[in-house]
Amino acid sequence: MEVVQVLHMNGGMGETSYANNSLLQRKVILMTKPITEAAATALFSTADTAFHASLAIADLGCSSGPNALFAMSEIITVMINLCKATNHELPEFQVFLNDLPGNDFNTIFAGLLPRFQEKLSEQMKGKYGASATFSCFFNGVPGSFYGRLFARESMHLIHSSYSLHWLSQVPIGIEGNKGNIYIARSSPPGVIRAYYEQFQRDFSMFLECRGQELVMGGRMVLTIPGRRSDDPSSKECCSIWELLATALNEMVSKGLIEEEKLDSFNIPNYTPSPKEVRLEVQKQGSFSIDCLEVSEVNLSIFDSDFDPNVVSEDEGYNLARCVRAVAEPMLIDHFGEEIIDEVFKRFGAQLAAHMLKENPALVNVVISLKKIA
Amino acid sequence: MEVVQVLHMNGGMGETSYANNSLLQRKVILMTKPITEAAATALFSTADTAFHASLAIADLGCSSGPNALFAMSEIITVMINLCKATNHELPEFQVFLNDLPGNDFNTIFAGLLPRFQEKLSEQMKGKYGASATFSCFFNGVPGSFYGRLFARESMHLIHSSYSLHWLSQVPIGIEGNKGNIYIARSSPPGVIRAYYEQFQRDFSMFLECRGQELVMGGRMVLTIPGRRSDDPSSKECCSIWELLATALNEMVSKGLIEEEKLDSFNIPNYTPSPKEVRLEVQKQGSFSIDCLEVSEVNLSIFDSDFDPNVVSEDEGYNLARCVRAVAEPMLIDHFGEEIIDEVFKRFGAQLAAHMLKENPALVNVVISLKKIA
Repeated sequence: MEVVQVLHMNGGMGETSYANNSLLQRKVILMTKPITEAAATALFSTADTAFHASLAIADLGCSSGPNALFAMSEIITVMINLCKATNHELPEFQVFLNDLPGNDFNTIFAGLLPRFQEKLSEQMKGKYGASATFSCFFNGVPGSFYGRLFARESMHLIHSSYSLHWLSQVPIGIEGNKGNIYIARSSPPGVIRAYYEQFQRDFSMFLECRGQELVMGGRMVLTIPGRRSDDPSSKECCSIWELLATALNEMVSKGLIEEEKLDSFNIPNYTPSPKEVRLEVQKQGSFSIDCLEVSEVNLSIFDSDFDPNVVSEDEGYNLARCVRAVAEPMLIDHFGEEIIDEVFKRFGAQLAAHMLKENPALVNVVISLKKIA
Repeated sequence: MEVVQVLHMNGGMGETSYANNSLLQRKVILMTKPITEAAATALFSTADTAFHASLAIADLGCSSGPNALFAMSEIITVMINLCKATNHELPEFQVFLNDLPGNDFNTIFAGLLPRFQEKLSEQMKGKYGASATFSCFFNGVPGSFYGRLFARESMHLIHSSYSLHWLSQVPIGIEGNKGNIYIARSSPPGVIRAYYEQFQRDFSMFLECRGQELVMGGRMVLTIPGRRSDDPSSKECCSIWELLATALNEMVSKGLIEEEKLDSFNIPNYTPSPKEVRLEVQKQGSFSIDCLEVSEVNLSIFDSDFDPNVVSEDEGYNLARCVRAVAEPMLIDHFGEEIIDEVFKRFGAQLAAHMLKENPALVNVVISLKKIA
């Protein structure tokens, strides 16, 4: 599996699209908003930052849904308010939306951007009067964030949410992970080590590249699905993939999937602990840590404090749809298209049963960084 | 008709796609290559240009076919050769591919870019050895070039080919253009004036925006389908649309299209003379003119000196396919999808008959500019 080619959220605006199944990710962006705001405010007031006439901000792993613009919109609003409060002239904003080349950029550009730009412009006129001009230039940046994406010292603030758990490749040497599709309680130590080492290589490469791209004093806010525990096979981070593995194993036992096919499938994903994240940042050396937090997001994503208009009929199946929007292209690439509906029916049933017993949550590791070297 | 929403080349890679019907545009880019090369060379050697560690180049109206990367690739090659010849360190390239938001950026990003990047990297290793590193960052920029697209003084070289003849809107006040779809011999003077004034407004706005975006000494090479004659209704620039109008009028007389429907359809397009182009540049004031040339491209686009592997069966129908790839979305928006095949069958027949009598050519106005104020 070539991760760069296969890893992308479901495109378009249909029932199984990421665009219509990304409320969880939206909720996470909202939860981490205070940290992003603090980073934007710090950037604005840091003397050693070249806070010029133009401000370049990026979202890495923006995907193709409404979230693609959500984080950037928050940051722009903070900046506009800061400028207004301090009587600063508004900078020109350059917004860079990055994802892998297979991401559905057309939906962002033609479907979301025009209305978003209108709303921004209205917001501006509300604050600065009808004659206010406001410049915000949007760019799509196709490519892996495990390589360079931007010119040297050209960026001021980089944001990434729910993307850095994706590895650049399936780790090498995990043939022993039979019956599993990610780190599981039954995974041999060599498999866990291979996953961790891949994370270390990828994350340090990520830090190296961003270190080159950010101006001195530039900021970066990263939210990574992770875990509190030191144990990489802890259920707080592995249970969802274990349930998907259960669904796939059921289909093996029914003869619907070949056993070898399942054995050779592994998710290119790693859910780090805050300690592991901190270690890589310290080793790499380009950044100081402003803030490192762990938070939890309830997987009952449609709970009442989030969107009262959405009523959940069956949270297991809803969550299965979220996972489908994310994982389907990978599964289709490996298993073929025919089995997909059946996989997610069974996975939904597994999730529904699981959620009756436990109130599952995802753990987020949030880190706010400042470029210092 | 909202030009921003409707004007885009046919997407994808199918039979009627722009990607497969853009040899004409490719030929034009090849023809104007010496001028682009001269501009790139001048940029490289101009002392007053901030030719820094990074070089930002853009193609405006890049479309979605192989041409989308073609012009940028030529410019990068010139720059690499200049650096090699003068022992300069290579800059980091930032490539900006612009088109309207409805353009098929997905096909560029996922279909063309990966192989293009591989080829660039091989080319580099061939010149600088296997260990050579080369940084080239690609961005898609959705938006109208009749507004700002980039941050102030951030661009070094801007290229645009076969895009600036598209106006930002159908001119207002051309109700009198009955039976025609563009300026034609039978168009009243008011229609011709309205088209010209729309061109003036649009082109001067274009120059204004690019003037803000280019660094001092930055260059711009524009190729616009135009005319030699001072007469805007000259057949050298109008005959293709007149033939399409003939096909549509035939369908009106057969009752397949309503007359009012045809009367209210006009192509948002203007084919300027070199004099008209020069006048706007001089009025606007940001640029000096390095070079202003008129050239001709034969519409027998598959002639032998171009691609010997392609044998033309019927050039009229081939050319009709080229026009279809460009104009279909606009026609569908106005007339509906049902009539399209019939329109282009009739248009192909018109073109075939026309090409037996005349050897038609398109006139290109090519202008190379330097930012001076």
